[in-house]
Amino acid sequence: MHPTPSPHSAEDKLSWLRLIRSEKIGPITFWQLLNRYGTAKHALEALTRLTQRGKTSYRLASEYEAEKELKFHHKQGFSLLTALEPEFPQILCSLTDCPPLLSIYGQLDILNQPTLAIVGARNSSLNGRHLAERLATDVGKAGWKVASGLARGIDRFAHQGSLQTGTLAVIAGGINVIYPPEHQDLYHAIAQTGAIISEMPLSLHPTANHFPRRNRLISGISRGVIVIEAAFKSGSLITAHAALEQGREVFAVPGSPLDPRCRGTNNLIRQGAALVESAQDILSVMESPLSSLPAELTQSSTFLRAINWCSLETDVLADLSLTPTALDTLVQRHAVPVQTILTLLLEWELEGRIQRHPGNMVSLVL
Amino acid sequence: MHPTPSPHSAEDKLSWLRLIRSEKIGPITFWQLLNRYGTAKHALEALTRLTQRGKTSYRLASEYEAEKELKFHHKQGFSLLTALEPEFPQILCSLTDCPPLLSIYGQLDILNQPTLAIVGARNSSLNGRHLAERLATDVGKAGWKVASGLARGIDRFAHQGSLQTGTLAVIAGGINVIYPPEHQDLYHAIAQTGAIISEMPLSLHPTANHFPRRNRLISGISRGVIVIEAAFKSGSLITAHAALEQGREVFAVPGSPLDPRCRGTNNLIRQGAALVESAQDILSVMESPLSSLPAELTQSSTFLRAINWCSLETDVLADLSLTPTALDTLVQRHAVPVQTILTLLLEWELEGRIQRHPGNMVSLVL
Repeated sequence: MHPTPSPHSAEDKLSWLRLIRSEKIGPITFWQLLNRYGTAKHALEALTRLTQRGKTSYRLASEYEAEKELKFHHKQGFSLLTALEPEFPQILCSLTDCPPLLSIYGQLDILNQPTLAIVGARNSSLNGRHLAERLATDVGKAGWKVASGLARGIDRFAHQGSLQTGTLAVIAGGINVIYPPEHQDLYHAIAQTGAIISEMPLSLHPTANHFPRRNRLISGISRGVIVIEAAFKSGSLITAHAALEQGREVFAVPGSPLDPRCRGTNNLIRQGAALVESAQDILSVMESPLSSLPAELTQSSTFLRAINWCSLETDVLADLSLTPTALDTLVQRHAVPVQTILTLLLEWELEGRIQRHPGNMVSLVL
Repeated sequence: MHPTPSPHSAEDKLSWLRLIRSEKIGPITFWQLLNRYGTAKHALEALTRLTQRGKTSYRLASEYEAEKELKFHHKQGFSLLTALEPEFPQILCSLTDCPPLLSIYGQLDILNQPTLAIVGARNSSLNGRHLAERLATDVGKAGWKVASGLARGIDRFAHQGSLQTGTLAVIAGGINVIYPPEHQDLYHAIAQTGAIISEMPLSLHPTANHFPRRNRLISGISRGVIVIEAAFKSGSLITAHAALEQGREVFAVPGSPLDPRCRGTNNLIRQGAALVESAQDILSVMESPLSSLPAELTQSSTFLRAINWCSLETDVLADLSLTPTALDTLVQRHAVPVQTILTLLLEWELEGRIQRHPGNMVSLVL
């Protein structure tokens, strides 16, 4: 778990929601700010101060908006879980970009059960769909929950094959936005025995750039990812690469070299992914779903702990001048994660103290 | 090269042919006898003596038969090469079961050029055939000759794709037996720019048990073997396993888990064969065809050299009694290759000194 205060009140939850819904604040910046200011409330206060000083057009999410979002969740029967709540999927806490909050539609008790992701092409072949459904059913019967992305093609059949045993759909838009629209029935069916999951604001309609971000959660919530039919540069490969970075097992179903939908999966196998022809190939690699989560997947990323923000702020500021300096130089000189430097820069930008230049350069403002 | 006397006369060649065409003598026994008696002629004389002593029905090939086979070769324009002749494929000499003689129909200068084998299912898919032809053409253009087995399906298209650049067909029957018969045109076309190769006696019609023996020569004559569509327990897998034993590279084309013709190739990939989608995947693994043959592929198997036949004969004989003894026990006790023991047993059998029993047991005859 990230370094945060003890379990929080309803007021805390509201502050968390405001902070993550504010402009320019993604999960990584969120955790940096929480580390720097102790609580989300203090971070919001600090950002407000800085913004007023800098007179920029930066907009924090208002308390009203956050309350409205929370009320809508209650009204619709959705849950909004912070990463501190016990129902929150613990396996996500090992990610440096763990979402601070998740909207859930469906069963909360499925979120902490052992899960495998099955993903693949939207324009999949009949054979691919058939395989997705069969693999999902077979790993489901063996005790695994199945995660996917509610997309057309492979995703849909992965969900269908595991409806009875429990399936998780991580979606790219807001929890109340059903995309593609023809999957409305599937969306509701999943919620009966499984869960729909979103980290995005209510009512957000997903655009192309939301999908890669969502894909990291499909792999992140799973112990292994199975890829069926994926072309080169497809979203499924992004999920597979996220899985590798997150230390998850990667499986791929081979296919004919003459089918462009198999280029991606064949290449994954060439790079070392386990070749899958049947559920047995998966089950023989994965430990039993009854085994507890490996230690490295339950520990949160700890890189935040050691930062001495005060001295770092002084040191980095001393490096800046009216001449633009490269962000890379700052990161190397101070040997801290790039996100830590970015958090300082965000604050100084809000204050109007620095200016950004093309090519990831920054300079002081006169 | 196997331990043999210096380049031999026409008379020597006739003796080699007689010896290898004699009952119960395969390539391994052939080399053992040559090692034991110095020349094929001396081996024939020894076997004749033993046979007369034992009064068994064992039949050596006659001089007449061998001469007839040689004459037929000349008449038809076939060549008969011993393993000592410079045109003989040197890469085969590293095999412990290197054929002592090969019948060739076609171009002799192709036999020592860098070669890759392409093999696969007879009942191949259209896609598989298309791929076989394309891969053969592409590796051909890159300077490789292509070996295969003249069979229906993948083999045929591998030959067709490489007719222009040169292809080798290793066949399971006699050099003059075209099987399957509908490949008559292909057989003659191959001989124009490439070669038909057989180690079997003239006019032998192949039966099921001849094919695995032939398969070891397809891989043996090649530096790498590419398998396209192979079911479990198929002949192509026998070729792939022979290739591994012979230290050749193994490549396999993946396919859908729903196609039983891909079970074998997918399993090869799972076991470590390089995954092939295009010729580039092969060319990037193989050294340039211009590079000389790796040392380990030009050296003959040397296990024959160290045998002291005389003392071994005394020692093994001392181990036998009227009670049957297991062959395995003899091999373990004397720490020599099983074939060396088998050569001694063959001689004693011809002499009528021993008797064989079920389960690889032997006993002395009273």
